[in-house]
Amino acid sequence: MDLWFTEKQTKDFGITAKIKKTLHGEQTEFQKLDMIETYEWGNMLTLDGMVMTTEKDEFVYHEMVAHVPLFTHPSPKQVLVVGGGDGGVIREVLKHKTVEKATLVEIDGKVIEYSKKYLPSIAGELEGNPRVEVKVADGFMHIAESERAYDVIMVDSTEPVGPAVNLFTKGFYAGISKALKDDGIFVAQTDNPWFKADLIKQVFQDVKEIFPVTRLYTANIPTYPSGMWTFTIGSKIHDPLKVKEDRFEDIDTKYYTKELHVASFALPRFVKELTE
Amino acid sequence: MDLWFTEKQTKDFGITAKIKKTLHGEQTEFQKLDMIETYEWGNMLTLDGMVMTTEKDEFVYHEMVAHVPLFTHPSPKQVLVVGGGDGGVIREVLKHKTVEKATLVEIDGKVIEYSKKYLPSIAGELEGNPRVEVKVADGFMHIAESERAYDVIMVDSTEPVGPAVNLFTKGFYAGISKALKDDGIFVAQTDNPWFKADLIKQVFQDVKEIFPVTRLYTANIPTYPSGMWTFTIGSKIHDPLKVKEDRFEDIDTKYYTKELHVASFALPRFVKELTE
Repeated sequence: MDLWFTEKQTKDFGITAKIKKTLHGEQTEFQKLDMIETYEWGNMLTLDGMVMTTEKDEFVYHEMVAHVPLFTHPSPKQVLVVGGGDGGVIREVLKHKTVEKATLVEIDGKVIEYSKKYLPSIAGELEGNPRVEVKVADGFMHIAESERAYDVIMVDSTEPVGPAVNLFTKGFYAGISKALKDDGIFVAQTDNPWFKADLIKQVFQDVKEIFPVTRLYTANIPTYPSGMWTFTIGSKIHDPLKVKEDRFEDIDTKYYTKELHVASFALPRFVKELTE
Repeated sequence: MDLWFTEKQTKDFGITAKIKKTLHGEQTEFQKLDMIETYEWGNMLTLDGMVMTTEKDEFVYHEMVAHVPLFTHPSPKQVLVVGGGDGGVIREVLKHKTVEKATLVEIDGKVIEYSKKYLPSIAGELEGNPRVEVKVADGFMHIAESERAYDVIMVDSTEPVGPAVNLFTKGFYAGISKALKDDGIFVAQTDNPWFKADLIKQVFQDVKEIFPVTRLYTANIPTYPSGMWTFTIGSKIHDPLKVKEDRFEDIDTKYYTKELHVASFALPRFVKELTE
């Protein structure tokens, strides 16, 4: 018997992957969590039926969320990841030697627990690294309680349904601004332009009202809807398009390069129009 | 009853789209042709079960195949499209005023016939335009018989199975070189780096042995495997990365921009490595 996992990315379109078995499945306090062993993508984490990460293509998302804002900042020391319980962003953050402390605030402890168990190449740094602090807590509240605390904040959330709904509000972006130092930068994943154009447009406008420098960039993530993902940056001073050549260091990546750092901000016309 | 079309893009992974109905289906002399009406993508043409084009996302492929080489050439007049029976590349080629004649050589007349019928917004220029010549013939043979005839050649083929297998050989690229004028350029679609890395690597090496300027660029096509598509350029003189600013004209596009023309050559590290 062949078993296939299908995610309906819209009501009329989806992806389907042949699976070996379900490694774990449960309804946590916040969402439905499934860990699936697939043939094409290796182990795959889904939340509420949506693919969050897979062993085969996780590097794209994690590298692009982390390195673009981190190289934009001249010397990031205090870094916060909101969400991101699989640990992939933290792993990338730690490649930057300037970073003294990387804090993860994930609302759902089960995501951390099962990522450690079934996605060790992604979650490996969540335990035993003195530069990492892991908190199981509400990211929205953590932001509300933080003031001038961070150089860079990454919002690695699920879609704006379920536990992440507060993370796509103007109030949240205002909180992030307060939680950042005077030259701080934040980035948030902001879905895809083929099926969620309105969301991208709304977030971009909201962030723009709060941050002097607002930019959108993209990356190719095969297991995410449409294969093209967007990230929105809000920055108080530093512009990701004006990073000095000597700021870039050689780090071990499979997707990110300093050329791609710049190129990823060149948007297809129909995407660019969402930012105008 | 819900009807869904599923394409297995690899043996273990695929896409699935809800359909209203099949508009046409037949085994032509060369391949299985299906025209399907979908909810998400509008009308969709598949050949041998693989998505060739859809009304919703066709603009990406057609713009990126056409405008990158056409703006790289200082003044393209004679243009050849090998394959491309849906007419989308021809439509884009005609946006360039320098082009005097755009010749389409498609092996399968049925693709042209049913594209005209069910994809009129794509195939509309295949009839009645004095700058367009349509030939139902073998592109490989047409190339073999052509000498210094074209400024730009686009190879808009299916995958290297079935009728297109000859179009991924070094002999074909040598033929293209002969068919091009002394400063000619060609581009071929070369599949995706997630599932077909070996193919991209092989084609790039083959083209590099024949053309002084060889480049790879990418575009996001949601209905194609992995959502990231590659295109390989072989050029005798002109470099797509050294196009003078004043060469670009404003043309009506939804994906292509002059900034993206350059940025699309900035490759993710794992893709860049396929060209080294």
